[in-house]
Amino acid sequence: MFGRMTEYPFSARVASLKSSAIREILRVVSRPDVISFAGGLPAPELFPTEALATIARDLLASPRGPAALQYAETEGHPGLRARILERAPFARNAFGEDGVLVTQGSQQGLDLLAKLFLDPGDEVLVETPAYVGALQVFHFFQAKVTFLPCDAHGVRPDALREAVRRRPKLVYLTPTFQNPSGVSYPEARRREVREALRGAETLVLEDDPYRDIWFDEAPPAPVMAGHDPARSVYLGSFSKTACPGLRVGFLLGPAEIIRRCVLAKQATDLQTNTLGQHLLFDLLGHPGFARHLEGLRREYRARRDALDGGLKASLAGKLTWNRPGGGMFLWARLAGGGDAAELLTHALAEGLAFVPGGEFHPEGEGKDAVRLNFTHSAPARIEEGVARLARAFGRWGR
Amino acid sequence: MFGRMTEYPFSARVASLKSSAIREILRVVSRPDVISFAGGLPAPELFPTEALATIARDLLASPRGPAALQYAETEGHPGLRARILERAPFARNAFGEDGVLVTQGSQQGLDLLAKLFLDPGDEVLVETPAYVGALQVFHFFQAKVTFLPCDAHGVRPDALREAVRRRPKLVYLTPTFQNPSGVSYPEARRREVREALRGAETLVLEDDPYRDIWFDEAPPAPVMAGHDPARSVYLGSFSKTACPGLRVGFLLGPAEIIRRCVLAKQATDLQTNTLGQHLLFDLLGHPGFARHLEGLRREYRARRDALDGGLKASLAGKLTWNRPGGGMFLWARLAGGGDAAELLTHALAEGLAFVPGGEFHPEGEGKDAVRLNFTHSAPARIEEGVARLARAFGRWGR
Repeated sequence: MFGRMTEYPFSARVASLKSSAIREILRVVSRPDVISFAGGLPAPELFPTEALATIARDLLASPRGPAALQYAETEGHPGLRARILERAPFARNAFGEDGVLVTQGSQQGLDLLAKLFLDPGDEVLVETPAYVGALQVFHFFQAKVTFLPCDAHGVRPDALREAVRRRPKLVYLTPTFQNPSGVSYPEARRREVREALRGAETLVLEDDPYRDIWFDEAPPAPVMAGHDPARSVYLGSFSKTACPGLRVGFLLGPAEIIRRCVLAKQATDLQTNTLGQHLLFDLLGHPGFARHLEGLRREYRARRDALDGGLKASLAGKLTWNRPGGGMFLWARLAGGGDAAELLTHALAEGLAFVPGGEFHPEGEGKDAVRLNFTHSAPARIEEGVARLARAFGRWGR
Repeated sequence: MFGRMTEYPFSARVASLKSSAIREILRVVSRPDVISFAGGLPAPELFPTEALATIARDLLASPRGPAALQYAETEGHPGLRARILERAPFARNAFGEDGVLVTQGSQQGLDLLAKLFLDPGDEVLVETPAYVGALQVFHFFQAKVTFLPCDAHGVRPDALREAVRRRPKLVYLTPTFQNPSGVSYPEARRREVREALRGAETLVLEDDPYRDIWFDEAPPAPVMAGHDPARSVYLGSFSKTACPGLRVGFLLGPAEIIRRCVLAKQATDLQTNTLGQHLLFDLLGHPGFARHLEGLRREYRARRDALDGGLKASLAGKLTWNRPGGGMFLWARLAGGGDAAELLTHALAEGLAFVPGGEFHPEGEGKDAVRLNFTHSAPARIEEGVARLARAFGRWGR
């Protein structure tokens, strides 16, 4: 009978839908006594809330107010598109003024590109480990996802060169402070990756939401800066630098691809919310925004140091990791191997949450890794979290 | 060679992508001297801009401010979901508290349902004429779209009864002040439609964005109120009652379907923008909102009357139409037949835009109709638009 839970006539793509373990963990950790290294949340106390309050008040009281609440162009607010390009000169050169689409967060860029490029069975290359939100999209559009081997400097150029010979539809790379691994490809690796991609009949999708969240030195230019622009698309976000709740990101690429993304976006949600775009336009033009970014880096650096230092002091023999130079996550491996999902059980009993590594890998792999977020908790709370993690190892008998 | 405009390895669904004629007309009519009956824009001077300015200022300055800018639940703001259900008691009874998803405008509800239900070649039933935004989605997901015959009271029950025997995946209905036809099914027709759908192995998708925009009397209850809730989903919007730029709508349905929509939405854009949801939550709780709605109805009624009266006075022999009881559009037919796209050429020369009927029909049909929007222009400008339309008929030699 129609109408019972398993009996709706769903599409074939629904078979790939599952709630991520991250989501399930996040449900558990809404208790205030739990310290969460699990989510990927920025620190709300560091949002430019006051600046946005002033901007919102002035905007809505101004003659522009009603326009900020009206339907608007699918491509996005023209002024915001121009400011996005100003901040991404590599893209202005590569794609020109028509190469920008404002998206409902950079996650929507993945959805639109999957719609435009993926038929069932098409191959997509990803890194190992890979961003879960991208894996969800590729699986949902019934792609064949191939995980490429990576080392401490990013994807391995030999494996990439070999794989692109099969002409996969997309190569999805997150070369700068990756979620989850924290890896940022050094300049030399970026050159090798460009070399491996040279002449390949495939579209390279570079996802770069953490570029501005660096702690030690600014990251090298994107991989796509120097790659064939006709075969490059680039995703960016304001979720980490301003705030995620406005849901405004951007997709940069060849005008021919952007034009079709605009048509696909019309059918998807008509346009990105107008008010959020106006607020971000004004915020990016605010003289205090550069100072806000500097403060954000300083505070997140202190949190990264609290986590890195805490682990060094109390868990150096149990975990191995590289200190991330930016982004939001520290990725560590169990020095003695084993299944981090077991460790998680003990950690939750101690009031600490994190995400076990399996989530970011092909089924059955990556179980000996943990992803630890360091942006959402203040340094003292991070230190307490590390103490709970140490006790969890004790409970686990390791 | 890869990388030239026609040579990207696009997915099969891209073949259906085309810019709608509406969009092309809207490009032309951005000139301020053109009077546009073409778009589907609400009147920005009637937005609750002042109320939203106060709400935004108070919200962002309050302790809730940072949370309104943070990531939030994919399902939507819990308080807003509750207020949505309060305003839709038929859905609370049918679906319960878990039956609500806040969407990025109701257009996103169509995208999510297409993702969940449509494999290439699946059949979808629509009315004749039909809402263009829905046709775009169904075509993009490679559905087989069947147009059902309609009369002045809505879809014809006999044709519907016959068509659902084939077990189409979806039946898409807009029974209340339809875009484009303005038709609202009377109570008797709603009963006949429910009767025709009784026992059918198909999901009924009722799209109801204009329910609160009535001028003469409140519309009857939705068709789904009284239909099998396990086989019903319902789309609503705040774009016409509050403002469209926040991009907040909702999808109501059985918990089993909503739960999968939530997973699909995670992969689509993570969540609807948090700030817009908080603003709408506060606006719906504002004591002035009911008064705002009354004022909106009064002003749009005056505009409907200006268009209806103007046409009666000067174009009664050239056009035939039924006065719409709500919504945003008046739908008229050329009394002498012919192609409204030709009339449009002459109208544009007179500084008036509208949408010819072919857009809303199967290829090649419906050419003798015009869709005239009456919400975006003040009454005096509507009268001037009618005068221009009369001159366009003169130019056309009819």
